[in-house]
Amino acid sequence: MPTPVTDADLALAAELGQQLRVDSVRSSTSAGSGHPTSSMSAADLLAVLVSRHLRYDWDNPDNPGNDHLIFSKGHASPLIYSVYKAVGVVSDEELMTGYRRFGSRLEGHPTPVLPWVDVATGSLGQGLPDGVGVALAGKYVDELPFRVWVLCGDSEMAEGSMWEALDKASHYKLANLIAIVDVNRLGQRGPTELSWDMEAYRRRVTAFGARAHVIDGHDVAAIDRALAEAGALDGEQPTVILARTLKGRGFSEVEDREDWHGKPLPAEMAERAVIELGGERNLLVRGPVPGEAGPRRAADRHAEVKLPAYDRGQKVATRKAYGDALAALGARQDVVAMDGEVSNSTYASEFAKAYPERFFEMFIAEQQMVAAAVGFGVRGYRPFASTFAAFLTRAYDFIRMAAISQASICLSGSHAGVEIGADGPSQMALEDLAMLRAVHGSTVLYPSDATSAAALVAAMADLDGVSYMRTTRGAYPVLYDAGESFPVGGCKVLRSSGEDQVTLVGAGVTLHECLAAADQLGQEGISARVIDLYSVKPVDTATLAEAASVTGGRLVLAEDHHPEGGLGSAVVDALAGTGRVDLAIAHLAVREMPGSGTTAELLAAAGIDAAHIATAARDLLA
Amino acid sequence: MPTPVTDADLALAAELGQQLRVDSVRSSTSAGSGHPTSSMSAADLLAVLVSRHLRYDWDNPDNPGNDHLIFSKGHASPLIYSVYKAVGVVSDEELMTGYRRFGSRLEGHPTPVLPWVDVATGSLGQGLPDGVGVALAGKYVDELPFRVWVLCGDSEMAEGSMWEALDKASHYKLANLIAIVDVNRLGQRGPTELSWDMEAYRRRVTAFGARAHVIDGHDVAAIDRALAEAGALDGEQPTVILARTLKGRGFSEVEDREDWHGKPLPAEMAERAVIELGGERNLLVRGPVPGEAGPRRAADRHAEVKLPAYDRGQKVATRKAYGDALAALGARQDVVAMDGEVSNSTYASEFAKAYPERFFEMFIAEQQMVAAAVGFGVRGYRPFASTFAAFLTRAYDFIRMAAISQASICLSGSHAGVEIGADGPSQMALEDLAMLRAVHGSTVLYPSDATSAAALVAAMADLDGVSYMRTTRGAYPVLYDAGESFPVGGCKVLRSSGEDQVTLVGAGVTLHECLAAADQLGQEGISARVIDLYSVKPVDTATLAEAASVTGGRLVLAEDHHPEGGLGSAVVDALAGTGRVDLAIAHLAVREMPGSGTTAELLAAAGIDAAHIATAARDLLA
Repeated sequence: MPTPVTDADLALAAELGQQLRVDSVRSSTSAGSGHPTSSMSAADLLAVLVSRHLRYDWDNPDNPGNDHLIFSKGHASPLIYSVYKAVGVVSDEELMTGYRRFGSRLEGHPTPVLPWVDVATGSLGQGLPDGVGVALAGKYVDELPFRVWVLCGDSEMAEGSMWEALDKASHYKLANLIAIVDVNRLGQRGPTELSWDMEAYRRRVTAFGARAHVIDGHDVAAIDRALAEAGALDGEQPTVILARTLKGRGFSEVEDREDWHGKPLPAEMAERAVIELGGERNLLVRGPVPGEAGPRRAADRHAEVKLPAYDRGQKVATRKAYGDALAALGARQDVVAMDGEVSNSTYASEFAKAYPERFFEMFIAEQQMVAAAVGFGVRGYRPFASTFAAFLTRAYDFIRMAAISQASICLSGSHAGVEIGADGPSQMALEDLAMLRAVHGSTVLYPSDATSAAALVAAMADLDGVSYMRTTRGAYPVLYDAGESFPVGGCKVLRSSGEDQVTLVGAGVTLHECLAAADQLGQEGISARVIDLYSVKPVDTATLAEAASVTGGRLVLAEDHHPEGGLGSAVVDALAGTGRVDLAIAHLAVREMPGSGTTAELLAAAGIDAAHIATAARDLLA
Repeated sequence: MPTPVTDADLALAAELGQQLRVDSVRSSTSAGSGHPTSSMSAADLLAVLVSRHLRYDWDNPDNPGNDHLIFSKGHASPLIYSVYKAVGVVSDEELMTGYRRFGSRLEGHPTPVLPWVDVATGSLGQGLPDGVGVALAGKYVDELPFRVWVLCGDSEMAEGSMWEALDKASHYKLANLIAIVDVNRLGQRGPTELSWDMEAYRRRVTAFGARAHVIDGHDVAAIDRALAEAGALDGEQPTVILARTLKGRGFSEVEDREDWHGKPLPAEMAERAVIELGGERNLLVRGPVPGEAGPRRAADRHAEVKLPAYDRGQKVATRKAYGDALAALGARQDVVAMDGEVSNSTYASEFAKAYPERFFEMFIAEQQMVAAAVGFGVRGYRPFASTFAAFLTRAYDFIRMAAISQASICLSGSHAGVEIGADGPSQMALEDLAMLRAVHGSTVLYPSDATSAAALVAAMADLDGVSYMRTTRGAYPVLYDAGESFPVGGCKVLRSSGEDQVTLVGAGVTLHECLAAADQLGQEGISARVIDLYSVKPVDTATLAEAASVTGGRLVLAEDHHPEGGLGSAVVDALAGTGRVDLAIAHLAVREMPGSGTTAELLAAAGIDAAHIATAARDLLA
């Protein structure tokens, strides 16, 4: 518990609040952009939090016992950077010359290029879901008493993801999660939906299972009481502190006025603001530090992982191999898994059965699922999150932000493409390769058999950044012996000879169709090279270029995906990047809207089955 | 108001409920897949709704006065198709031989290949948001008394989008929206989060501003009362009927049992189920029809649209031109617009000022924004929805489903790429072109100046499917005279001569950099062709191929986007599709994680400014 508050504590907090305001004004005016008014509304909240409640060892941001502080309203970056100045880890000079400048770590919205920032924010509605992940890790896996404090904006309460977060926080009884909502009434282009209807907010967060405190967000004593109660870790509910505040608080020319969102004060106004706020200050204030926490539990990554073995020719779905391999990886204490209420389809269920204490059911809330993965990543865990590949589209903004957060998360999407059959297009992932390839620093894997799938799941566990594995619904023959290696960025040449006239490239179900097509072509005396492109990003440019060279530039690219941005694009982009190229490409992909049917009917209708691949090869040779 | 209910009405509804169950069992067993148990739980709800409350002219699905019926739980397709049999628009034979079969309109999840289906569902959490759009159109633009009935699953209440929907429904006082939640307690892999905690559901929906009725979903009299009250269109609140039901209701071997989600009954069990349910029936039941509604208001598409005119050389941001052109298009009565609380940035504000009655503020809820657009599309309107391009990633699943829904919606994303400067990567769209290109049937436009932007906004209003315009933050010189035409699928060759040695392709900010690079190269005696690729999909393959041919296959492709799936891919894919090609490509794109900075600093750091383009061109010629 914090020490009983004294008048001196409150006076210091109030002073600190003014300093944070002054520095928010100064830094954004110096940068010529930024959000001072959105910072000023929350300054008192942060002043009390940082001086009295946040347990944080500023000299050791890696201390496993540190509380977490997440700015879900990332645009209030002047405020958090001003906090860093106040605790002495960023100088006034850096604040004034670095903020929003090229090459500076004080970016427009906070990112983890700073050691005290857990996750990148700035796409609203993500910090709280990320915080749920951190709090899950703390309560259930780390078993440490740190708290997760999340500063939220009122505008972002319109994002459904915030309610996914509160729902999961109450489902998982995350008393270690405290959301502080800065209800300053004004969004970017005008008043928010609920304005200062604090009771409406209270009803909603209470209905979602949180403990609510409605306070005046500029009354430091009230703030202190609310934070003390929220931080006590008693009970089984997350806390939401609903703080009624004034945007631009403290400077009469902008306070509670519209049209001041995201605008720095012109220099002259800034001068008047600093005067009205009582002038520049250079208080150095630190709050409590955590007790000894011992080493991070997630640091234990070493274990004997015995991957599943399959017999060549045995029919096994890659999604099953994903589950088997994930369960095997569970021997590593840092591996956790989560799923969007379809674990019996994605086979994440295999992990859930083996390691229930490290499996987290996220129900049908894909945004929160990915955010939870990011949160576990913050605590050093290696999260694997799965759902139908089609439904990962629901979380694209979270995946994009995970990359900016430098999160290392592993995603698996099952039921790719028309291969799934009768369920129809809503369940068919046909954009996922494009979506994931376009993420910065991502790895995109698409195995065709169980052996490679299992090996690549193991590889994912050590990759940096966002990695993605696309798995297939149906069971297909195992192609490789157990123990074969599948380097990320490689591919496998499954058929080749010196006389190859054409190259067939596939992955997943289309690789099996390529193999069948090669057999047909072989009977006609046409020798086809076949490449298993299990690594779509990075892609094995050298092997593709060699194949193109040997086969006269003739390639048939077959994919169970829309024609844009997937396997075909990966191959063509790679070859086009090798200098002058002479190519004749047939690109088979899903170009019409599919309906229901059997796998065979739908592959044929899309023109990506063996017969179409063989025909395309013949046409290239005609 | 419906006629007072009689015992005979209720008996008929109960019988109809049993018929719907029997037919759900029969059809899914015949197909060998599907979700009979999820259909059986909601059968009584639908029986009462269809026989007594839904005002629908089954012989004229285009009747503007018809109520709407949306299956947000799209996996209950056996139930809706069994309803279609019961009202006599689908035969028993079609149901038994078509369901989930190749080429049939009775797909695994409902899609608008059927005339009575408004929107494709099957990605959970979308039908209710779509319904909000339809209800918005009904209340505010059509001004017709139809109701929008949405059957929801309990599992999908975990999706944040459902709460975005209820939030907007209450904000906009949509008494014409009635959500019926089939609380059958069981999801796919086990119990739902809230199980049968009806009071928890009530608290949540009430807190979000809806009127709640908790009923026994198998008590036809209770259902009738609730539907009568909900459908009365009195008050200013949406209604949520929370119906406690049993999954698999009516067949003791599966009723309320786990592990029966998404599984047809084996033939023998199906036989026993039909017997227990009282045998096959062939009731033909229709409910009330709407009164005369007059012609659809959205049918009035003809108007004098006077597009804004800009002077060549004048600096105008394309986002501003978007807003200007949209406001001009507002002369068309079918055009509506919505925005994600950033209309002063996207310039949708221009439309909002001119036509406030057809502008809908969606606050920061991008999923609901796109769903609202889809809903307006259902009513024949031409919706334009805008936000920062980066934040359209939040709605990718909704955009994907819009394509399956055959919706014609226009999206605009502003603040593309590193060009935005100081705000940093969270606000920079660097995946949007890839994301939108991969959508089936989409159009992707990326104008470089205000004249083309305005012309293309006008073109979007008549395109089928999902169309997308990427706009730029900064103001750049107008390149074209007012009145110049910009066909979708075309491009503009801005510099060309018979001696061109290299082709520079850009769009948006990089086109201006290409022009500057061409000037530099020209001073060195290198003649460069410059192409404004304002239409990224469809792309002008012929003009690109001609340029490639003239310039020896040498192309520099420059884009403010990640290297995967964007403009560069569009060009390379198009050229690779033209037969044998001989190319030397330099692809300049954003390959490292950007930070903050000025536009010039960030373009240079990404290697996509004029200097880098010129260097790449020289290297190709070296």
